[in-house]
Amino acid sequence: MKSADYPESLKSLIRELKRMPGVGPRSAERIALWMVQTRDARPQEIARSISEVTAQIHPCPKCGFFSSGTLCEICADSDRDSTQICVVEQPTDILPLERSGAFRGLYHALGGRISPLDHIGPDDLRIDALVERIKTEQPAEVILALGADVEGEATSNYLASLLRDLPVQITRIAQGLPAGGGLEFADELTLSRALSGRRQV
Amino acid sequence: MKSADYPESLKSLIRELKRMPGVGPRSAERIALWMVQTRDARPQEIARSISEVTAQIHPCPKCGFFSSGTLCEICADSDRDSTQICVVEQPTDILPLERSGAFRGLYHALGGRISPLDHIGPDDLRIDALVERIKTEQPAEVILALGADVEGEATSNYLASLLRDLPVQITRIAQGLPAGGGLEFADELTLSRALSGRRQV
Repeated sequence: MKSADYPESLKSLIRELKRMPGVGPRSAERIALWMVQTRDARPQEIARSISEVTAQIHPCPKCGFFSSGTLCEICADSDRDSTQICVVEQPTDILPLERSGAFRGLYHALGGRISPLDHIGPDDLRIDALVERIKTEQPAEVILALGADVEGEATSNYLASLLRDLPVQITRIAQGLPAGGGLEFADELTLSRALSGRRQV
Repeated sequence: MKSADYPESLKSLIRELKRMPGVGPRSAERIALWMVQTRDARPQEIARSISEVTAQIHPCPKCGFFSSGTLCEICADSDRDSTQICVVEQPTDILPLERSGAFRGLYHALGGRISPLDHIGPDDLRIDALVERIKTEQPAEVILALGADVEGEATSNYLASLLRDLPVQITRIAQGLPAGGGLEFADELTLSRALSGRRQV
């Protein structure tokens, strides 16, 4: 005799929930059981919210950030400094920069970085769109805020040489000691970059 | 100037996801961003699955297990041994017992245990329904498989004395060393219960 199991729709929900990032089999089962046992309308609200978001949110055609209108909140904001464009890898990199409060210009998400191992070349990124924006919007400065790892560096170097002939200043965010970190916790590469990036005080 | 933020529907999805058990603010954000960035239909499938489950799954009126039909899979299975009813606290306790393969009778989930601190008394549990089932179905044995903590013990004792006069044998699952555990890892109460529950070999 076979053991009893959850009804099919409950098993299927557990399978679906397991596909969410960071949710393993046990969390998926726990969430699904909460959904069938709770007496309020929260699970339905979650379902409605997922449907709404997937129907409504799309990448901003200009910068790539999440948008529910024609342009995203940032590109649509005329108070922002349009003389600066900050280039990031992913749209998800934009909010951390926003929260730092240190930048009030516009953004441009490439959608990734050059990574030959993953078969991602310059043509797979929104680089043509960036060149187009520089020609049309004529910013004074393009700030490269890509990752400090090998692929990020390679992409920064590629962009720096590609954009060199355009009438725009190209800068790159600094690498060095993270805030709050002592020298004893920094690796050698970070220290070497912090040294080479030293500034007069 | 205020920092930009996600569009309202995305923020609302993050708030909703945070309500799921075991999902904190960072996981909720990660899941929501995955949902807007993935190019397949999985998020919609998850939403559909949640709606389906919340509309379809209800407690089995007989035993309290999850059911999508009139009776649950277990109560509807005529091959099961109806002379035994295993009493558990929660419907979620049923599958672990099923997976053990050691029981092929019927179940009865109380929906909790007596807990004066949480204002849960016998009237808040499905105890009347259990008495009714014993009278109607006339099982030979009722197995109490409640937790080995204070409230579980108190509920077992309450049930044992309540059901004493009914023409049914009342048993309780054993307490002792967990499988695979050496004596050095067992606490004193477990050892004392393992000793008092010793059997001739």
